[in-house]
Amino acid sequence: MDSCVCAALAARDYEVYALHCSYGQRTEDRECQAAHAVADRLGFRDFLRLRLDIFRRIGGSALTDLRIDVPEAPADGAAIGAEIPVTYVPFRNAHFLSAAVSWAEVLGARTVLIGAVEQDSSGYPDCRLAYYEAFQELIRKGTREGDIVVKTPLIHMQKWQIVALGLELAAPLDLTWSCYSGSEVACGVCESCVLRLRAFERAGAKDPIRYANRWAGPEAGETNQEGAA
Amino acid sequence: MDSCVCAALAARDYEVYALHCSYGQRTEDRECQAAHAVADRLGFRDFLRLRLDIFRRIGGSALTDLRIDVPEAPADGAAIGAEIPVTYVPFRNAHFLSAAVSWAEVLGARTVLIGAVEQDSSGYPDCRLAYYEAFQELIRKGTREGDIVVKTPLIHMQKWQIVALGLELAAPLDLTWSCYSGSEVACGVCESCVLRLRAFERAGAKDPIRYANRWAGPEAGETNQEGAA
Repeated sequence: MDSCVCAALAARDYEVYALHCSYGQRTEDRECQAAHAVADRLGFRDFLRLRLDIFRRIGGSALTDLRIDVPEAPADGAAIGAEIPVTYVPFRNAHFLSAAVSWAEVLGARTVLIGAVEQDSSGYPDCRLAYYEAFQELIRKGTREGDIVVKTPLIHMQKWQIVALGLELAAPLDLTWSCYSGSEVACGVCESCVLRLRAFERAGAKDPIRYANRWAGPEAGETNQEGAA
Repeated sequence: MDSCVCAALAARDYEVYALHCSYGQRTEDRECQAAHAVADRLGFRDFLRLRLDIFRRIGGSALTDLRIDVPEAPADGAAIGAEIPVTYVPFRNAHFLSAAVSWAEVLGARTVLIGAVEQDSSGYPDCRLAYYEAFQELIRKGTREGDIVVKTPLIHMQKWQIVALGLELAAPLDLTWSCYSGSEVACGVCESCVLRLRAFERAGAKDPIRYANRWAGPEAGETNQEGAA
């Protein structure tokens, strides 16, 4: 969802080349399908799917290591993000940004956008502004011209503000995929689904995607809230 | 050769997990074979071969794009390294280091070594000390504990000093592969071969590997020098 809203912002301001990384995350094919659909609807110039085999080979994250369970969100509504969760993929975003910067150098592109979110996210160290500032310095020192700029337009937004911005931009949120567990229909109970559903609720909007733990149809909201009360 | 000497230093001081990246460079299988042989002789704990498909897909470097010729070194002995060469692979070392740091986080390793060389190298921006200092800051900001240290023990050495250190450490230089072009026998004329041969000459030593443009056998040195005079 963050990537989609970031992509809609990019489409407003730039000619866009989209990079999608399949890094062994449980739902990589579903995510790639979603990313491709978003890129199509937004009319991007190109779409590059990269495959990174390192994370599945080294393990260490619930997202890529099938022996580690993806946790459900705390049932009592306790804060998510107090510590680095098992879904943290070690140093993941450095791989994504390195790929984007390499491609930007070849294309002659000057701007790399990434939908990272610091507040209201899950405590990943590579989603903080300070991390992107450090990456910017790395680009200054380690590229041919040193002039590629990394932008993180969502970094200080809360998830509900991202939903609101997405609605304002008519971003194709209906095509997005956030769930850590499912493959056809989002589970609605993993941390990522819960953060997403809370965000739509707080933005006063209905999430256009379907969830496995909810009735489809207009009465879904009431039924689900009774069940969870 | 730099990687081999760095590996020999690592073997002296640490339990070593070796990372080799096949990134679409022309000689990736030959390089991997050499790296594996070095790791075997030095008794490393593990050897991970990563495949990065990005560079062959985006192009932009003579090392990975077969449409761009690998240049020979200037015949008149002019300085190599005055500007960034066509063999520069855009932002390459960020991919290598990102992989090493990800793996280190999973292993609980605290040190990453890389045989980058600033002086006497080929003008690659991602071989400068300032680049590794920037990467160090990225690790501080973007990893779980922030305590992994990147070491570049060769960064301020000249190539001949690296050869001398390698001989001192009994590093398996006979197993290494430096050539940009060849696959069975090193070409002896590409920039990488020329830098290597000059280094052995200045260190007062004989390169233990074979070259395609030289006679095998004890008279090789004289014959070649006459031809190149």
